[in-house]
Amino acid sequence: MTETSNLILGIDPGTRITGYGVIELLPSSLKPIDFGCIRPPPNLALPERYKILFEGIESLIAQHSLTAIAVESQFVLKNVQSAIKLGMAKGMVFLAAARHNIPVYEYAPKKAKQAVVGTGNASKYQVQKMIQSLLRLPELPEPEDAADALALAICCAHNLRNPLCLNR
Amino acid sequence: MTETSNLILGIDPGTRITGYGVIELLPSSLKPIDFGCIRPPPNLALPERYKILFEGIESLIAQHSLTAIAVESQFVLKNVQSAIKLGMAKGMVFLAAARHNIPVYEYAPKKAKQAVVGTGNASKYQVQKMIQSLLRLPELPEPEDAADALALAICCAHNLRNPLCLNR
Repeated sequence: MTETSNLILGIDPGTRITGYGVIELLPSSLKPIDFGCIRPPPNLALPERYKILFEGIESLIAQHSLTAIAVESQFVLKNVQSAIKLGMAKGMVFLAAARHNIPVYEYAPKKAKQAVVGTGNASKYQVQKMIQSLLRLPELPEPEDAADALALAICCAHNLRNPLCLNR
Repeated sequence: MTETSNLILGIDPGTRITGYGVIELLPSSLKPIDFGCIRPPPNLALPERYKILFEGIESLIAQHSLTAIAVESQFVLKNVQSAIKLGMAKGMVFLAAARHNIPVYEYAPKKAKQAVVGTGNASKYQVQKMIQSLLRLPELPEPEDAADALALAICCAHNLRNPLCLNR
C-alpha cells in the first residue's frame, strides 16, 4: 500500500453487529479491499462489547491508511433506548476516527442507496447486487451490514471525487 | 490514597456538558473527593468533542483508584437524534470503564434522587441541598450536572453498602 492510496472505510454501527467495508478510490474505478462484520459476544456486559467494537475499528484503522470514514447520519429506530445503544456504537467510530485524525463523513441511508443504485428507495438486495457489480465481487457482499457499510464507502467516494456534489 | 480506598465516580453524560463527581465510601460516611464538569468546546466537530470527553474520563480514572462508575440508565429525551448524541457521550463512559476494568452500575434518575432525598420526585434544588448536607460541602454543588453525577455516586455507594437493596 503506497502513501498516496485513497482508502475509505464505511461503517454501519450497531451493538450486536457492526458492518464495515474498505474500498480504494482509483482514478476511474473503485477497488474492494476488505469488508465484513464485528460481532462482540452478546453474553458480555455492554461496556465490554463496546470495547471490542472500538478495538475492532482501531484495528481496521491500523491495517489501512485511511483517507476518510463514512457512517450513517440518520437511523430509523423504534425507541429512545435503542437510539442510545446505537449512539454508543456510533461513538466508538467517532472516537477512533478522532484519535487518528481521520475525517468522518455522515450520509443519510437514502443518499448511500442513491449513490449505489441511483434511487433512495432501492431494496437491500438491489444495493447488494449493484455493489457486487461496481466492485466486481465474485458474489453478493454479505451480510447486509457489510453491504450497507460498502454503500456508505461508495457514497463517500463519489462525494470526494465530486466535491461540488458534496451533500452531508 | 491507599489501595483500599473505596472511590466511586458518578457521571451524568452529555455532548455539551458532562457532570462528574467522585466520592469516597467511608465506614459510616461519604467524603467528597472531586466534582465538576467536562465541557468540550462546542465549535469543534463532534468526533473531536467525544475525544475530549473520553480523555477527560480517562484522566479522572487515572487520578482516582476507582471501585465503581455509576451512570444513568434512563433518559428523558425529545427525539431519536438527541438520544443518539447522548448515547455517543455515554459510550465514552462505558469504553473508558471497560478499558480499565472498572464495573459500571446504572441507575434510573428517580432511583438516584430517592437515594439522596428519599423521594424520586425531588426537585433539582432539593437534590443539591441534600448532597451539600450529606457530603458536608461549604456550598451547593454546582452546576446541576455535577450534582446529578454526585447523586448517582451516592446512590451507587448506598447500593454497594447494602447489596441486598441493589436495584439496577
